[in-house]
Amino acid sequence: MTSALPTDLAAACGAALDELRRRTPLVQCLTNEVTTNLVANALLAIGASPAMASVPGEAEELAGAAGAVLVNLGTPGPDQRACLAPTVAAAAGAGVPWVLDPVAVGVLSVRTRLAGHLLGERPAVVRGNASEVRALAGFVSAGRGVDARDDVDTSADAADALARRTGGVVAVSGPVDLVTDGITHVRLAVGDRLLTTITGSGCALGGLVAAFTSVAPPLTAAVAASAALGLAAERAVIDARGPASFQVGLLDELYLLTPDDLACRVAAAQRIGVPA
Amino acid sequence: MTSALPTDLAAACGAALDELRRRTPLVQCLTNEVTTNLVANALLAIGASPAMASVPGEAEELAGAAGAVLVNLGTPGPDQRACLAPTVAAAAGAGVPWVLDPVAVGVLSVRTRLAGHLLGERPAVVRGNASEVRALAGFVSAGRGVDARDDVDTSADAADALARRTGGVVAVSGPVDLVTDGITHVRLAVGDRLLTTITGSGCALGGLVAAFTSVAPPLTAAVAASAALGLAAERAVIDARGPASFQVGLLDELYLLTPDDLACRVAAAQRIGVPA
Amino acid sequence: MTSALPTDLAAACGAALDELRRRTPLVQCLTNEVTTNLVANALLAIGASPAMASVPGEAEELAGAAGAVLVNLGTPGPDQRACLAPTVAAAAGAGVPWVLDPVAVGVLSVRTRLAGHLLGERPAVVRGNASEVRALAGFVSAGRGVDARDDVDTSADAADALARRTGGVVAVSGPVDLVTDGITHVRLAVGDRLLTTITGSGCALGGLVAAFTSVAPPLTAAVAASAALGLAAERAVIDARGPASFQVGLLDELYLLTPDDLACRVAAAQRIGVPA
Repeated sequence: MTSALPTDLAAACGAALDELRRRTPLVQCLTNEVTTNLVANALLAIGASPAMASVPGEAEELAGAAGAVLVNLGTPGPDQRACLAPTVAAAAGAGVPWVLDPVAVGVLSVRTRLAGHLLGERPAVVRGNASEVRALAGFVSAGRGVDARDDVDTSADAADALARRTGGVVAVSGPVDLVTDGITHVRLAVGDRLLTTITGSGCALGGLVAAFTSVAPPLTAAVAASAALGLAAERAVIDARGPASFQVGLLDELYLLTPDDLACRVAAAQRIGVPA
Repeated sequence: MTSALPTDLAAACGAALDELRRRTPLVQCLTNEVTTNLVANALLAIGASPAMASVPGEAEELAGAAGAVLVNLGTPGPDQRACLAPTVAAAAGAGVPWVLDPVAVGVLSVRTRLAGHLLGERPAVVRGNASEVRALAGFVSAGRGVDARDDVDTSADAADALARRTGGVVAVSGPVDLVTDGITHVRLAVGDRLLTTITGSGCALGGLVAAFTSVAPPLTAAVAASAALGLAAERAVIDARGPASFQVGLLDELYLLTPDDLACRVAAAQRIGVPA
Repeated sequence: MTSALPTDLAAACGAALDELRRRTPLVQCLTNEVTTNLVANALLAIGASPAMASVPGEAEELAGAAGAVLVNLGTPGPDQRACLAPTVAAAAGAGVPWVLDPVAVGVLSVRTRLAGHLLGERPAVVRGNASEVRALAGFVSAGRGVDARDDVDTSADAADALARRTGGVVAVSGPVDLVTDGITHVRLAVGDRLLTTITGSGCALGGLVAAFTSVAPPLTAAVAASAALGLAAERAVIDARGPASFQVGLLDELYLLTPDDLACRVAAAQRIGVPA
């Protein structure tokens, strides 16, 4: 699996969604208790089959048999702390791609240490906000927790450094999303500000990235997931009255999204031509 | 409390809902962290009073005083593993009916062992999908986790064997639900395919079964719960745009469901006459 | 920070919401796994920035730097039991106001002991139902868990006693909310019965109280939070079909609430003049 940019990125994203719906890959999630329900429902809506096995002995048996693994460090409880290393090792050993969502890394000490240890197992994609990516890459950050204070643009160097270190892809979420493998940059101006008014939109994106890594190379997977969530948000905002009706619409629209919709949105985002 | 089929099953289901609304029984739940909010809201919507006490020392004190107990093995964390045996023993000791939802049993090892140990305490109802029921009964299964790969029909023998072993009722969820006490079979073609597109519809059903066991014999309780969730789903799908608006509608419709609605739906399901 | 009643309570509540939106205070929550998602989304909707760090080592580092801390005892799992004392001590030591939501205290033993120990750290506000407040104050109660059996009015003495003991404010939720600092009583007839048909409306209120304590004295904060949730509920019920659509509307309306809306609602509640 290479992370090289496909000749036709838009078509590749559409094909990935098509394949995802066909295969319904099992995505094993070590995720966080605040948003686990939303992540599971986002995975179902996009066409994957979520599993949230987080008990020592079970988490790793599922990881080796899954299509992809998600590790979200939002609430690293006792079982998760015990599961992290064996689960990621099982995924890596079985060639199953895994995605790291380093929630609040750089702000809180326990998860910052945990994330540092996990990087050696080479996540296919790291998905975080600018503060988290900068912290994980060892750059100084201005974060204060789960919300991002750093701009995506000022984090491009950190994202590149982190991608080169893991040999994978780094996806930085913000008003403009940045996806990089350390060399090639893709920027996507998708989504809506309402995504920041609900808890777990970043976590859901991490889950979608994991789902797409089971059917596409990491760079395509990260772009497809960002565009899918972004397009669903753009559609959901039309009838939303506030954050909760927006979240309902977001999941509905993810479910209704077609491969053509996704390909067209990626193509449009590229035509708009945010400079890389 | 006997599980014999009442002469008028439809009327008995309606009466059970009426009684449930009147008594608002406390349902003590050891449930899973992915779907606990949905289970609690489904219990409130049907008219029960949910409690999610899962701390050692508290779980068992509530179990003995509850109207029913739900044990859902979806995420058996450290406290739940410590609570399971004393909670179920407290329920059994006090004559409080308890319901086992063996999520992903047969696929994951820790919970498979846990479920096996719990069976000796004779759950009033085991509610699972076909794969889970087959695994729990000791039959070979084709499951890969939380979604069912086995057909309900091919699981009738396993369900019967399991029911005879526990002396209770087994409810197998699928496109057609099967409820059996080992001798009498009730099949219900209720619900909608959208139930499979949200996480926790099976967990919610487990909760509803528990609520109904506090006011009706196990066979009636399992039929009433399946029909209640199924009918709510059939109504919710009318205005649903996708899975999230469907889930909102599902809970609203459970709340709006009347005893007459429920009795009529059970009667209709029987008239349609899925052969037993 | 004093809890004296401001001359113009309505204006003070409106100003507090304005300030909350401007500062987006970090609210560190040790909360419960049934309702954590709702609490986080309610905090986002009102304008705060929720953090749910509940791991030993992290919970206390965030508490000292937060605008306010929420402690909800609904599901006191192993990490939370280990975190409670150091987190509350860190908040108290840094002068960060903290709010105690004593869910099911008086009914379940483990949390009743935990709550008793925490009182010494002088919560700015205790927010509970009548049963919980009576139990915490040492009065005999009729509760059986998370729902309240005691009337708010019969709990005024207990609330006063508890407020004098902590030196803070006690907010008793019910059909009429009572807020007291041990001397001054404010009663608010706000909200809607549908609040009792969803899980977590009390937990959400606890979160809102915490958010408001970061920008206003405890008495004003508790009144502002009760009125904000109550007014959002009154608006949400208009288009609600049942509890789930009501919950969607509740969060939307919290988000749409303006400082003027809030000030007017508090003024109206006072004009209606529930006798203190």
